[in-house]
Amino acid sequence: MQCRSVNELQKLVDDAKKYTSTGKVADYIPALKNANKDSLSIALFYPNGNCYSAGDVTENLTLQSISKVLALALALMDRGQEYVFDRVGQEPTGDPFNSIAKLETSVPSKPLNPMINAGALAVTHMIKGDSVEERFERLVKFIRRLSGNISLGYNKDVAMSEFKTTDLNRSLCYFLKQHHIINEDVEQLMDLYTKQCSIEMNCLDLARIGCVFALDGKDPISEEQLIPHHVARICKTFMVTCGMYNASGEFAIKVGIPAKSGVSGGIMGAVPGRFGIGIYGPALDEKGNSVAGIELLKMMSEKYSLSMF
Amino acid sequence: MQCRSVNELQKLVDDAKKYTSTGKVADYIPALKNANKDSLSIALFYPNGNCYSAGDVTENLTLQSISKVLALALALMDRGQEYVFDRVGQEPTGDPFNSIAKLETSVPSKPLNPMINAGALAVTHMIKGDSVEERFERLVKFIRRLSGNISLGYNKDVAMSEFKTTDLNRSLCYFLKQHHIINEDVEQLMDLYTKQCSIEMNCLDLARIGCVFALDGKDPISEEQLIPHHVARICKTFMVTCGMYNASGEFAIKVGIPAKSGVSGGIMGAVPGRFGIGIYGPALDEKGNSVAGIELLKMMSEKYSLSMF
Amino acid sequence: MQCRSVNELQKLVDDAKKYTSTGKVADYIPALKNANKDSLSIALFYPNGNCYSAGDVTENLTLQSISKVLALALALMDRGQEYVFDRVGQEPTGDPFNSIAKLETSVPSKPLNPMINAGALAVTHMIKGDSVEERFERLVKFIRRLSGNISLGYNKDVAMSEFKTTDLNRSLCYFLKQHHIINEDVEQLMDLYTKQCSIEMNCLDLARIGCVFALDGKDPISEEQLIPHHVARICKTFMVTCGMYNASGEFAIKVGIPAKSGVSGGIMGAVPGRFGIGIYGPALDEKGNSVAGIELLKMMSEKYSLSMF
Amino acid sequence: MQCRSVNELQKLVDDAKKYTSTGKVADYIPALKNANKDSLSIALFYPNGNCYSAGDVTENLTLQSISKVLALALALMDRGQEYVFDRVGQEPTGDPFNSIAKLETSVPSKPLNPMINAGALAVTHMIKGDSVEERFERLVKFIRRLSGNISLGYNKDVAMSEFKTTDLNRSLCYFLKQHHIINEDVEQLMDLYTKQCSIEMNCLDLARIGCVFALDGKDPISEEQLIPHHVARICKTFMVTCGMYNASGEFAIKVGIPAKSGVSGGIMGAVPGRFGIGIYGPALDEKGNSVAGIELLKMMSEKYSLSMF
Repeated sequence: MQCRSVNELQKLVDDAKKYTSTGKVADYIPALKNANKDSLSIALFYPNGNCYSAGDVTENLTLQSISKVLALALALMDRGQEYVFDRVGQEPTGDPFNSIAKLETSVPSKPLNPMINAGALAVTHMIKGDSVEERFERLVKFIRRLSGNISLGYNKDVAMSEFKTTDLNRSLCYFLKQHHIINEDVEQLMDLYTKQCSIEMNCLDLARIGCVFALDGKDPISEEQLIPHHVARICKTFMVTCGMYNASGEFAIKVGIPAKSGVSGGIMGAVPGRFGIGIYGPALDEKGNSVAGIELLKMMSEKYSLSMF
Repeated sequence: MQCRSVNELQKLVDDAKKYTSTGKVADYIPALKNANKDSLSIALFYPNGNCYSAGDVTENLTLQSISKVLALALALMDRGQEYVFDRVGQEPTGDPFNSIAKLETSVPSKPLNPMINAGALAVTHMIKGDSVEERFERLVKFIRRLSGNISLGYNKDVAMSEFKTTDLNRSLCYFLKQHHIINEDVEQLMDLYTKQCSIEMNCLDLARIGCVFALDGKDPISEEQLIPHHVARICKTFMVTCGMYNASGEFAIKVGIPAKSGVSGGIMGAVPGRFGIGIYGPALDEKGNSVAGIELLKMMSEKYSLSMF
Repeated sequence: MQCRSVNELQKLVDDAKKYTSTGKVADYIPALKNANKDSLSIALFYPNGNCYSAGDVTENLTLQSISKVLALALALMDRGQEYVFDRVGQEPTGDPFNSIAKLETSVPSKPLNPMINAGALAVTHMIKGDSVEERFERLVKFIRRLSGNISLGYNKDVAMSEFKTTDLNRSLCYFLKQHHIINEDVEQLMDLYTKQCSIEMNCLDLARIGCVFALDGKDPISEEQLIPHHVARICKTFMVTCGMYNASGEFAIKVGIPAKSGVSGGIMGAVPGRFGIGIYGPALDEKGNSVAGIELLKMMSEKYSLSMF
Repeated sequence: MQCRSVNELQKLVDDAKKYTSTGKVADYIPALKNANKDSLSIALFYPNGNCYSAGDVTENLTLQSISKVLALALALMDRGQEYVFDRVGQEPTGDPFNSIAKLETSVPSKPLNPMINAGALAVTHMIKGDSVEERFERLVKFIRRLSGNISLGYNKDVAMSEFKTTDLNRSLCYFLKQHHIINEDVEQLMDLYTKQCSIEMNCLDLARIGCVFALDGKDPISEEQLIPHHVARICKTFMVTCGMYNASGEFAIKVGIPAKSGVSGGIMGAVPGRFGIGIYGPALDEKGNSVAGIELLKMMSEKYSLSMF
């Protein structure tokens, strides 16, 4: 079954939108505070280039943690699977995304997976290039190709705001540096990482990237293989086991698709073989996921039988 | 692609068997120590009733942790989703299966998921019946229907051996009792749980049960719905996110199918829509999974494109 | 400087008594709930047999955690220092008294010290005797000698109430059993331990026992060495480093004497070379210490220069 | 009882020196690696100015963690007790000195005590002054007064070596900064802290400072009150409850005096009312304490009845 009309989608959005009142906009990054708590938009991107959307899909969002998946894809392409997983684990965790405690009690001390901050920092560290600028440029180009939007960039205000307040990530980085998982200057890595998190796009772009993952790495229109098949598969696996912070298990049961959320309120989803999803709803639940976005995906999963399981 | 002949399967088994030398038979349950470390067998069960096998598939194994999935299915059928997940979480964890620490630091103090021991004990506690005998009888009957083997029972020696040595599970139970997650006599629950873990079958039985899950709960021959669709789906989701102890993440990436292992060396797998898998290889890796069994599944996943992701 | 009159002491009690309103009577042991929240009494016992008191010192209290020090003294006399500290550590901990998490992460898995529940259970396990009855009888006789009160016994209602509700201690015991730190039947040890915790006396008895510790193990009147010098010293050391749950550090700074509290609201103190203290004030602060008792000791420590430091 | 002659002391040193072979020189700070593993020296400083010593007491050592006590004294004098303990706790901990995990699980997130690195960094942060230079100058002047050695300074090589390698402390600082316990530039604090740790003196200086603490803050010769009485008392309390890393509990039992060790192999001890102790023996046990130094103190404690308990 699939979504047949914009009206159908709009109705689901209207139903899900009620949940925005139960959430809160992220406030630990100053620049995110100004988001409109009530908004909810969605785009679906199909292999043939068709696209349905509802809500104000022209609103931009910053990727935040969604960028972890894209950086992982690029790092795997840059370094290979073995190199990456020698330095970052593959196991889900019941701990919060910004936890440092497990780093200390694990032997050897490596981040449990690339979707928690510690692991994501180690992954971003692996992106190749001679300078922060070059590495960031390579990442942006990669994301432009995935989204088909050649003009996308990053939000300087958000990046600067994060750079100034991201002391917990600095703490994680120095811990990783002590344990030889990263070896570059921490401020450089912070610069690169906060820019990565601040890459900006709208739901349509996000849905198109989701569609690339849904198609095992192929461009939905040109059918060019933008990401190697096995890399796309690895990314989707992490999206299932740990894409939704420490609500990933529940999401896998209730929705059952590879998806990655960010504290900006974005969610990128990939329904294998079928279509990509981009959602923006900045009101978050206590785990840091878009509260209305998750409700919307639950309704859609039931209505259109999206679950892989 | 699918396995075309017993010879093809036998060849894979021969290749995977080399890995048995790198593992160790479980020794913390005295009755498991006598297993033949070198053995490896596999059965594949298809919806039409076809079955391929290799190795000595008549050897019996006890289910151990594999039983956690079956008890979960029954508890969900007995109590409903809401009741069960009010008492046991749905999140994967990076901690070992027998850990108690996370119980203490979580608020509220509920087991993270039904695949770790604390969660499995809470689930078994939920199986309905007026006595341990009746509850166990209900579970055995349920498993007989899933396997189509009406004569299967449990191994009394293994059950007794586990009952005597399972003090860590008693510790978990009293912790759960203190926190009102269970409220029955602990020795009764230990009796039921150790019997459940000691239910005995061979790889063919295991593969047929796997096939029921692969078919969303339907009997592969009669097509009767033995497990409600949504319950089968929930079970498969947990098999993906936490079925292989704290190697589940890596397994999802390298193999990519719902599977559950036990320290007896058994693995039950379900390739969605396609077939069920039963494996027995008692030599374990350090995480507690059949070392040759996992290698065999990796080879098969690659050769037959089994990954869901 | 020392307390010169009952009036002086009464005045301090009156001042400290105001703090009872900020505390709460322990409610997790049903039989403790009925204590009079507002009461506060104190006795000081001097080497010459002199005794000052204020408040209703005839009220009985059960020892609860105060008994941990006395059981430790007996276990050290029964088994020797090496045996005891091979099985229980000597280090203070920032964790709550009933924590199990540190047991799991410590290697080898031994309780951090004899003042947390896990350690106290291991210590009580070491008390010699052929049966629970004999071991308890030996402990009671020992405490009768220390207090000079030959008629003291235990409160059956409290013991039974604790026995029924002490599942967290059962959890700790099975954990210790799994790790071979205890090897007796858990229900037997629970029987012994809950009786030990329920030994009953009044402030005068408690002050006299405190005086024995203050005098390095000597009876304050007969001067008989009731506890070997080195055992008394070890006990006082633990009272300083971990006698007041996880407020021990602050207590050492603000009061600075060896003391042990219990959730009944009792505190036993020993001012080295000078006198013993018995306090009963059942309103507890959030750490589980008598809130008015601690205020009273702070005032006394300042007024009479009691700190060892 | 007290040490009567240098010969007596020399004999004890000779006996204790055998233990140096069981230890290892700290190697995580490059500049400490070159210490002579076999050396052991001690000085005792008495209130009358008398001083006994044995071994090569002219050898210099850097204070390392011993400096934590001195910085605490100055911060308490600068800020007052309430300010300091609003930001740093007073409780001992069973965790290693450089642990970050407890910071995360504690609510509110404040370091458990001033003797673990997280707490010491917060304390050093509190030392008053308009610049790192001024704050360090104030600390050095304070220590010169305590030691009576007006020429002591810091070891630039060690400071630089630590500054370069102290990424774990940087990690702790950023964690503290995120939680608003410190608010200065981390590199500045690292500069100040590594200089503080690298303050250099010999055993005689160390013994004289120990004597100041033994005399409740008074200069042993001029009797001037260099540290307020209550500040000296607080420092001695922490030395007892957490002065010897996570071997403090055992040390309190076996030796029983306020003492603080550093990974350079130094130990500063204070026998209340009697004398100060300075020890240098760079071979460390696995907890990070001078292995021969501790044996020497055990012998002395027994021979001269030093224990406070």
